[in-house]
Order: sequence, then structure tokens, then C-alpha cells
Amino acid sequence: MNLRLGNLLSPFRIIVFSYIAAMFLFSLLLYLPVSAQPGVNVSYTEALFTSVSAVSVTGLTVVNVSETYSAAGVFFLAAAIQLGGIGVMTLGTFVWMVLGRKIPLSQRMLIMVDQNQIAFSGLVSLMRGILLVALMIEIIGALVLGTYFLSYFDTAFEAYYQGAFGALSAFTNAGFDVTGESLIPFADDYFVQLVNILLIFAGAIGFPVLMELKAYFASKDRSFRFSLFTKVTTATYFIVFAIGVIGLWIFEKNAYYEGFSWHKQLFFSLFNSATARSGGLATMDVSQLTLASLLFLSALMIIGASPSSVGGGIRTTTLAVMFLTIKSFAMGRRDVKVFGREIHEEDRQKAFIVLSAFVVGLFLAIILVSAFEHSSELELMAIIFEVSSAFGTCGLSMGITSSLTLPSKITLMMLMLIGRVGLVAFLFSIRGKEKQSRYKYPTERIIIG
Amino acid sequence: MNLRLGNLLSPFRIIVFSYIAAMFLFSLLLYLPVSAQPGVNVSYTEALFTSVSAVSVTGLTVVNVSETYSAAGVFFLAAAIQLGGIGVMTLGTFVWMVLGRKIPLSQRMLIMVDQNQIAFSGLVSLMRGILLVALMIEIIGALVLGTYFLSYFDTAFEAYYQGAFGALSAFTNAGFDVTGESLIPFADDYFVQLVNILLIFAGAIGFPVLMELKAYFASKDRSFRFSLFTKVTTATYFIVFAIGVIGLWIFEKNAYYEGFSWHKQLFFSLFNSATARSGGLATMDVSQLTLASLLFLSALMIIGASPSSVGGGIRTTTLAVMFLTIKSFAMGRRDVKVFGREIHEEDRQKAFIVLSAFVVGLFLAIILVSAFEHSSELELMAIIFEVSSAFGTCGLSMGITSSLTLPSKITLMMLMLIGRVGLVAFLFSIRGKEKQSRYKYPTERIIIG
Ligand SMILES: [K+]
Ligand SMILES: [K+]
Repeated sequence: MNLRLGNLLSPFRIIVFSYIAAMFLFSLLLYLPVSAQPGVNVSYTEALFTSVSAVSVTGLTVVNVSETYSAAGVFFLAAAIQLGGIGVMTLGTFVWMVLGRKIPLSQRMLIMVDQNQIAFSGLVSLMRGILLVALMIEIIGALVLGTYFLSYFDTAFEAYYQGAFGALSAFTNAGFDVTGESLIPFADDYFVQLVNILLIFAGAIGFPVLMELKAYFASKDRSFRFSLFTKVTTATYFIVFAIGVIGLWIFEKNAYYEGFSWHKQLFFSLFNSATARSGGLATMDVSQLTLASLLFLSALMIIGASPSSVGGGIRTTTLAVMFLTIKSFAMGRRDVKVFGREIHEEDRQKAFIVLSAFVVGLFLAIILVSAFEHSSELELMAIIFEVSSAFGTCGLSMGITSSLTLPSKITLMMLMLIGRVGLVAFLFSIRGKEKQSRYKYPTERIIIG
Repeated sequence: MNLRLGNLLSPFRIIVFSYIAAMFLFSLLLYLPVSAQPGVNVSYTEALFTSVSAVSVTGLTVVNVSETYSAAGVFFLAAAIQLGGIGVMTLGTFVWMVLGRKIPLSQRMLIMVDQNQIAFSGLVSLMRGILLVALMIEIIGALVLGTYFLSYFDTAFEAYYQGAFGALSAFTNAGFDVTGESLIPFADDYFVQLVNILLIFAGAIGFPVLMELKAYFASKDRSFRFSLFTKVTTATYFIVFAIGVIGLWIFEKNAYYEGFSWHKQLFFSLFNSATARSGGLATMDVSQLTLASLLFLSALMIIGASPSSVGGGIRTTTLAVMFLTIKSFAMGRRDVKVFGREIHEEDRQKAFIVLSAFVVGLFLAIILVSAFEHSSELELMAIIFEVSSAFGTCGLSMGITSSLTLPSKITLMMLMLIGRVGLVAFLFSIRGKEKQSRYKYPTERIIIG
């Protein structure tokens, strides 16, 4: 192993260490007595778990935020969410930028890697664009929700406070709440739900898609062409969303939905399908759903959102490449085509790696937590749900997180970190520089499957 | 779609249809009144399930074989197992061979495909070799077990009958039993367990490995080189076996194993690790194990045995390629090397397809069965276990199979069929001839993970 500094500080390692550093920093801030409500004692484990959950924009909690944290605590939490959502590196570089320093190439590379971009070009303007779009969406969301909340809350301050935190939490797909019970109070308010769904979409669809949409509407000539990435990820995102809505309705129409009006059934399905794809907000107690729905939601949480978004999971493009590869193979083709383009062999291999590592990690985590919780005899479904939620940085919960043992909580924190960094970046952070093999071995075929 | 006969009758389709035909044929034979014990009524669903389970050498049962089937029924069952284990096509061609007819190339291709072989050469001698080795192992196993059983059973006939069926069931990894309670009566007889473990190994390690071992011992010069396939599959098979033994011991030492002697703990671990990899025989009621062990056993059943063996699962080589690819990626290498050879890019792609299709199929099946069994409120663990067992053609059971609803039973039958045929062959059977693309699209990179 080469231990020179240049190797140790590969861009991916810096990103992973930045996330870890941010998680520990905010754990200390959230552990400060001033962060807690008067009379509430926050243990360091609780502070660390909350911080990891916030920086990874997951939203799993071991405490009730509104009952536990003071105004200062909520402010730290919001800062951690904003930092995690927009990306530690992106924000750091933004600070660099506004300080007026020229960004060196090595720094640009960091952002490229964090937002998972492939092309170097226009990086600085891309950064600025991301931040502007993100802040604009959050501010509009805060104003819309805050104004609407005037009829819900006693004071204008409380309404806009709830609106601002809600918009931040929805757009960054963080899934935290200061209402004390997520969006359950709005279970019959379809306007609030629609705004939240749109904010979740905006965060989860991926920054490159937002930037291309902006470019599309800004460009005057009609020759603007969306990238293959935007087409694949958007199509996959909404196809899975639609399957989610239909699936949940089928599994619940004779169960939890029994006796509900059609629009209530529709909105529970819409909201749960949207929120499972990394949002983490809830309009109902999900543990009331059938076993099939809970498994289905776990699958949606594992699939997750777009790459280069605030969401997690194996990501849409991995799922798309999986299905396209199976389809090509079943049709007797060697190449994988979609939208008039061919998927690069290296991207297929990355998808294989992400899927393999995710499946192995998920299985290991479920078995480990089952072993750690042996004495508490938790239901397997709750364990699978919580692990999927952590690894997919979703934050939906069947309510067992706070009662887990410490080793299980550590497992969930590890999953949230890796889930937020992304498996490709995480594996990249382990490795040194790409090695060109100095010698080649002969290739020999083996039997597969 | 081209509907000419040549296309419809692609080798892979013939194989899939042969398995299906064999399953229906034996379902009729097992449905005959003469097959049942006097006074026992076998429903057609039970006969079909038993037949599918036997031809796919899975071993899941909805009836107790020894209490349900007459001597004729057991004979049909044994025939179905033998046919499934050695391969419908292999046996068919053997018949062809002994009838003295020259085997046309198109027939040879069928066997190649069924046993998943890549090289054409020496196919007929390979066939003969497979059959001879298989029969020899079964006969030796039957003689050893039968002779040993003389002290267990009242008559020599019963002892050798039990020995012959036991050896057949163990070597083909069928997992059926005529004792009425699998190998539970031999829970303290380590000799019987060892013989069974060795027979399970012999069947699950793959016919190419057995043939190479035979060639190795037959060859006089010391330059004999084992193929990459044999090295990879054997190493993976036994590494996973060892991990299985250790894992089960860790998960059970303070639970089910509590108070057992060290050798009893060792043999429960050895046997369960071996039998989960497609064997399906049991020396204990597995539903007594902890949640962690049951999940771990499910993982072992999903991993399964070698390709071109009597076992199922994603197979050892898929697992090996998964881990080798992750390792290469994490180490910054593009090529995947092992044992001084390079894994072919196409084999890596096949591994990706097998993993993707298996994960999707497994998840779908678990959700479907959960939905079908909604009213019966079965435990999720039992559903996951039974589905993994069917898809991996393992046959271990937590005892719920017979109480499942018809749609769930049909789901399990489909899984057993696809699991036995293998995902690569199954997908090949869908497709027509390999199509050379007439045009190429430009390649465009996307963001993965
Ligand atoms: K989230
Ligand atoms: K079996």
C-alpha cells in the first residue's frame, strides 16, 4: 500500500472524511445543553444518531425532535440537513467561491465527484446554479407552506417556522419534522401533501436534471437535447413512482384503505409511493399497513432516488441498467440500448457493483441487527424496514429505532453514512489511484448461473 | 417475431419444455390411485407439487411421502428425482446412445446447454462419464448406508430400501425422505450424517469438477491442470460452507445449542451448512433456530451450489464473480483476476444478469406470497425461508408449505422450475436466436450509484 499523502487524500476519501467530520461536529452541537429543551437530557448516542441521520438526510430518529430540541437545537439540525442535502463539498466550495478565490482544479474535482458528475466543463457555474435553484425552491416552498399554515397555527411566526422547516425537510428529502408527528396532522389536507410531494420530487430527481430543465427553458433554440442520464433517470423515477402507487393501492384496498373515500385512498398511495423514494415524511403510521405493503415499501426505499440528488438507495439508473441488461439478454442482444443511445460497458459494470454491494450490505445488516436484537424478539418485518430505510437514507420507520440496542444503532449509522456517500464513491474512497495492470493474465471462461 | 420451427425449438426452449413435460407426466403418475397408500386420497395439486418438487430436485413437500405414497408411488418419485438430478436431456441422450444411434450435432448441443458446458469436445464421452460416475456414487452410497442401516431396521429389505432412497436423495440433493421425518432420527448418528454430507457435496460440487477429478486421478503425467471453473467453484463452495458452519455456531451457541456437547454443536452446524446449499435434508426442526440463523440459512440457500450440478441458487461462480468484481473495483483495477486467469467480460455480465434476475424474482415472490397469505397471517420469516428454499431448489422448510394457499403454491412451483433450469438458461429460452445488431447507436455515459 502506498501511503503518500497524495494517495491518502484522494477526492473520494476527502468526501467520506468530510461527511464523517460533519457528523461528529453536529453531534457535539446537538449534545450541547443549549440545544436541548429545558429539563431534557440528551445522551451522546442520541445526539450522534440524530446528527448522522441529519447529515445523511435520512430522517430516522431516536428522539422526538420538537419535544427534545430547543430553538438552537433545531437550528443546528436544520444546518446539518442543509449541509448534508446540498453536499458537504458543494457548500464548502461555495464558501470558497464567495470568498473570491479562484477554484483550483483539484477542488473542482472534489465537487465533480461529490455530485457524481462526469464532465469537468462549466463546473463553477454548475455549482452556483445548483445552489441558486436549491435555495429558490426551498424559499418558494417555505413561503407557500408558511402562508398556508397561517390558518393552522396561532402565530405567523409558528406558521412560517413550520413552513420553512417543512420545505427544507421535504426538498432535501430529510424527513425530519418539528410538528412532533411528521405530516400525520395533514392526512386529510391534500394541498399540503401535494406541495410536499412536489418538493420531494424536486430534491430526488437529481440536480443535473434540474439544471438541464433550467437550461431547456432558458435556451431559445429548439435544438436543446436532454442528456441520456436525464431521460433514463426521469423515466425510471416516475415509472417506479406509478408502480408504487398502484401496488400500494392493490395491497391495501381491502385492508387499511377499507372504507376510505377514493381520494383518501389515492392520496395515501401517492404520498407513500413518493415518500418511500427517500422522502421519509409520513401521513400515517406505516406499521398499520399489510406485510405485502411493508415489503413493497422496503423495495421502494432500496430503489431510492436519482444519482446526484438528495436521495439514496441503489438509485434509478442502477435499476434501469439492471432491467435493460436483462431485457437485452433475453432478446439475444449483446449491447444495451435505450433512447437511441447505448449504455457504456463501464456503467453496466458499475451498476453490477452497486447492486452486488447493496445486496450484500443489506443482507449482512439485517442478519446482524436480528442477532443483536435476539433478546428483544423484534419482528423481522420491522428490522428489514428499518435497515432498508437507513441504507436507502429514506427515514420512514415502523417505530423501533429508539428501542434498538447500541450495536444495532451503530449498524444503522454506518448504513446511513454509506447510503449517503453512495456505494460507488464509498468503494472509490477505499481504493488508491487507478492502477494500470502491468501484466495481463490469459482469459478463461467459466460457467455462470 | 420469427415463428419458424427452428426458432421455436431452440435448445434452451426444448430443455425448459422437457422439464415442464416431465413435471406434468410425473404429476399424473403420482396422481394414479396405485401410487397412493390404501385409504389415502392425493389431490391433483398435491401430486403436481410433489412432481415439480421432485423433477426440480427441490424437496419441498405438501404431503408426508412415507405416509402418502405406496411402493409404486415411491418408485415414481425416485424416478422423477433421478431424471431431474441427472438432467432430462442427459438421460434422454443416454437412451439414444444405448439404442446405438449416432448422436446428431443438434442433440449434442442440447446436452451442452443443459449441463451448461461451453466446449463441444468429448461430449459423448462426457455424457457417459457423468452417468457412470453418478450411478457409481449412488450405488456406493446405497450399499454403505443400507449395510449400516441393518442395525436400525427390522428387515434387510427395509434397510437397503432406506439406504438406496437416502443415497439417491442425498446425491441428487433432492432432500426427499421415506423415513417420515427426514434425517431427524439420525440427529446423534454422526456416521450417517457424514455419509450424507459427502453425498450432498458430490452432487452439489458439479459434474465438470467430478469429471476433472476423475481425469486427474486417471492421468499419469503430472502436468494435469484443473480448469479455472473447477478452481473457482470448488474454492467458493467450501469457503461458503466454512462460513456457514462458523456463522450458525455463533448465532446458536447461546440459543438452540445451549447445553449441547461440542460435537453435537459441531455436527448441527456442519450438517445445516451443507444441507442449506441445496441438499434439503434435515437433522433437526430448523424452525427452532434463531431469526439470525434462519436469515443466514436463507442466504446460504440463495447462494446454492455449483453450476452444472444437481443444486440450485445463484450458484457459486456468480457469487465469486460478484465479490471479485467488487474487490477489483475497490482496488482500482479494471480487470478481474483470480488464480492467475482473467474473468471474461461476458461471464461478468452473465453474473450481473443472474444476480439481478434472482433478486427481482425473490423479492417479487416474497411480496406475492405475503399478499396471498394475508388472511393467514404467516410469519414473514417463514415466507422468506420457504421462497428462498424453492428458488434455490433446496427444500429445507419451516413447515408452512402444506398450509399455503393455491396461488402461493403455484408461485413456489414456478420458482422451483426456474431455479432448476437456471436463470441464464431460462432467459435464453425466452429469446430467439442471437441477433447481430444491424446498426449501432452512439454510446453515452450516465451516472450510476
Ligand atoms: K430521507
Ligand atoms: K434440494
